[in-house]
Amino acid sequence: MEFMKEIAPKNTCEISDLLSGDMVDAEVKVNGAIHSIRDMGEVAFVILRKREGLLQCVFEENVTGYDLKDLKEGCTLEVQGVMKEEQRAPNGIEVRLNEIKVLSEPEAPMPIPIGKWKLNTSLETKLSLRPVALRNIRERAKFKIQEGIVRGFRDFLFSQDFTEIRTPKITAKGAEGGSNIFKLDYFSKKAVLAQSPQFYKQTMVGVFDRVFETAPVFRAEKHNTTRHLNEYTSLDFEMGYIDDFRDIMAMETGFLQYTMELLKKDYAKEIKMLDVTLPKVDQIPTVRFDEAKELAAGKYNRKIKNPYDLEPEEEVLISRYFKEEYNADFVFVTHYPTKKRPFYAMEDPQDSRFTLSFDLLFKGMEITTGGQRIHDYQTLLDKIEQRGMTTEGMESYLMIFKYGMPPHGGLGLGLERLTMKLLDEQNVRETTLFPRDLSRLEP
Amino acid sequence: MEFMKEIAPKNTCEISDLLSGDMVDAEVKVNGAIHSIRDMGEVAFVILRKREGLLQCVFEENVTGYDLKDLKEGCTLEVQGVMKEEQRAPNGIEVRLNEIKVLSEPEAPMPIPIGKWKLNTSLETKLSLRPVALRNIRERAKFKIQEGIVRGFRDFLFSQDFTEIRTPKITAKGAEGGSNIFKLDYFSKKAVLAQSPQFYKQTMVGVFDRVFETAPVFRAEKHNTTRHLNEYTSLDFEMGYIDDFRDIMAMETGFLQYTMELLKKDYAKEIKMLDVTLPKVDQIPTVRFDEAKELAAGKYNRKIKNPYDLEPEEEVLISRYFKEEYNADFVFVTHYPTKKRPFYAMEDPQDSRFTLSFDLLFKGMEITTGGQRIHDYQTLLDKIEQRGMTTEGMESYLMIFKYGMPPHGGLGLGLERLTMKLLDEQNVRETTLFPRDLSRLEP
Repeated sequence: MEFMKEIAPKNTCEISDLLSGDMVDAEVKVNGAIHSIRDMGEVAFVILRKREGLLQCVFEENVTGYDLKDLKEGCTLEVQGVMKEEQRAPNGIEVRLNEIKVLSEPEAPMPIPIGKWKLNTSLETKLSLRPVALRNIRERAKFKIQEGIVRGFRDFLFSQDFTEIRTPKITAKGAEGGSNIFKLDYFSKKAVLAQSPQFYKQTMVGVFDRVFETAPVFRAEKHNTTRHLNEYTSLDFEMGYIDDFRDIMAMETGFLQYTMELLKKDYAKEIKMLDVTLPKVDQIPTVRFDEAKELAAGKYNRKIKNPYDLEPEEEVLISRYFKEEYNADFVFVTHYPTKKRPFYAMEDPQDSRFTLSFDLLFKGMEITTGGQRIHDYQTLLDKIEQRGMTTEGMESYLMIFKYGMPPHGGLGLGLERLTMKLLDEQNVRETTLFPRDLSRLEP
Repeated sequence: MEFMKEIAPKNTCEISDLLSGDMVDAEVKVNGAIHSIRDMGEVAFVILRKREGLLQCVFEENVTGYDLKDLKEGCTLEVQGVMKEEQRAPNGIEVRLNEIKVLSEPEAPMPIPIGKWKLNTSLETKLSLRPVALRNIRERAKFKIQEGIVRGFRDFLFSQDFTEIRTPKITAKGAEGGSNIFKLDYFSKKAVLAQSPQFYKQTMVGVFDRVFETAPVFRAEKHNTTRHLNEYTSLDFEMGYIDDFRDIMAMETGFLQYTMELLKKDYAKEIKMLDVTLPKVDQIPTVRFDEAKELAAGKYNRKIKNPYDLEPEEEVLISRYFKEEYNADFVFVTHYPTKKRPFYAMEDPQDSRFTLSFDLLFKGMEITTGGQRIHDYQTLLDKIEQRGMTTEGMESYLMIFKYGMPPHGGLGLGLERLTMKLLDEQNVRETTLFPRDLSRLEP
């Protein structure tokens, strides 16, 4: 009987293996995809793309049994050779090839020059050719940083005693109602795709006190903008036993502080490659909604059209104000008007026109919406009635209040938007692996 | 201007705070939900449910300003009192109350006795009352262990240089075809919910070599069994530059070994609470599909009806065989028949009737399907043609092979099934937070 016992030791080296210890002059075996080829006459540089970066291999005719013309971009290889220091090569090393094994060959030449430092193609082209465009090392670096943001979110919340949950994406009714819901047929019943895990994460506060989820959400909004997606990743948390909705903002601040440190430490290569300046998060200013509008209107000479709404342009101006006055990239805008928040938002006991809620703006764009929720059963029923809504389909949600819920609140953060702003990209599709918008269902 | 700087130090204690250091006789403040009340006459025990477990509080009349009858199960409290050692109480401690603040009150008495050790109610009742049934501490412990499994999967794969990805759940076409696909209307275009991230994770092997995803998948299967769900969490990974499909099995074995250790270490409380015996994973037997059928048929005197298929009953017998003969809870069954595998499965070069693939059985049930994939463009096209399939709608997928892919393979693992078998539950709904099946869209 054969048994699986452990992962067999690799006989090929990764770049970090080559850089650790004294590998100079050693005979090494490595694998990778041909990222680019530079024919210098006497020799050629065959640059391999590996998960940790690029590796220069030096090819000489009549050494490996292969002709240079047998090698093409997109071939995957396992090669052997002698490792040498070479300051002009990526990571300061190269491998002088003496053996080549071709693992696979492409059928056609690359449709875009992914081997170049920058892909100078339109977003449209990049998205149509996404499966190969992502092989460009600066393109893929964006998603490595995105991985780091999610890791930061999870690791920080684990350190704060949160429990990770997974809640259903097919549901009977939208959490917040509205028309922007994808509908589907579920064994002849009507179902919708979850716009947010709102009801479920509140439910789980009754179970674990503090919970989070990192999962897709779906919005059937007919917005064709640079900041809307119809499917995106929502980083959600919800916490019980809060004293104040500021506890939630403090938790988000802690997450940002932890994550910027994590990126600095574990994603330094990608941060450098994309020339990212990590934002200052040691302190984040907070300002009331009405005050923020006035500050921006005053400084930039703008009329307040609607005192109960914040237009994208106003978000930009408020961010600009706090950048100019406090050198802050982030700003918490608090106390949103009650009529702009969902029924479950807790009203400010001082003034019921406003809620104990906030948005977080980052370089002019809303990336988070959060706040304290109503936890009292009767208050919630009254609010539902007052809004002319029905409790039908909300029985399971209302159950949690009927049998007791602690004071609680939480937030939802759009991962792709945060990544976009962090990387100073102009379109959220740049930081979405395979974006879904009004016209894109593929790739 | 007010700034958010850090998380304010808590003035309330968690159970681990009470247990760490010398807190005996100290005046402490704690919060929690009333899990149960035991009136002993002179005193009453008010048991608080906190995220780390239960905490006994001792209530005496005329001390706190509250009457015992003011306190009900489901109230949330912030209390103050003196901590004492008490061997008969949970964790060996109790708090003698001198102050009570009621944070919230329920509207109605609990519909099921969640304060009991075991919820002696039917699965049907538990699911209908899921939002509160999960407050039972043994019910919630299942999902804490489930969190640990996902943590193990991610942490182990990170240690093996995998990159975490997030791929779209709304897609233009099902990855593996078939009729079990949920359809939806996407801005007047036809769309489906992803049955698996198969095409996307293969795509990302061309970018990052090794990738994983932990996300929901959707199956419109009309099976009403104890092991099927219509939405479940799939733990997927895919890795390039494999020498053999056994590399994938070895990686899964490594994941299981890492995760069992993690559960032993970080989830000991829940493991003990649910009386779980963690399975042996130091070595996992592997057996060919055809051989496995014969071994089970021989030992248990059963006729092989269909040499190309494995019925659930046969999975049970094969698992029983390996338990009896090798004391193994897991068994890898390899070389599944080509006709039972999707078109992208790599055929065995020795015998094209079989594939370089495997399932992992755990205590009689398939929890993983995996294998090596075809990486050559022309071979894949031939296979598609041979099956009478069309390449229409697969252009983006085929693109990755056209421009070069390394040898690769991977697997998908059903999280809820693995949890179910680990906890010796009889129904996968027991280990699904909010299950979706033929009749359940709520809660």
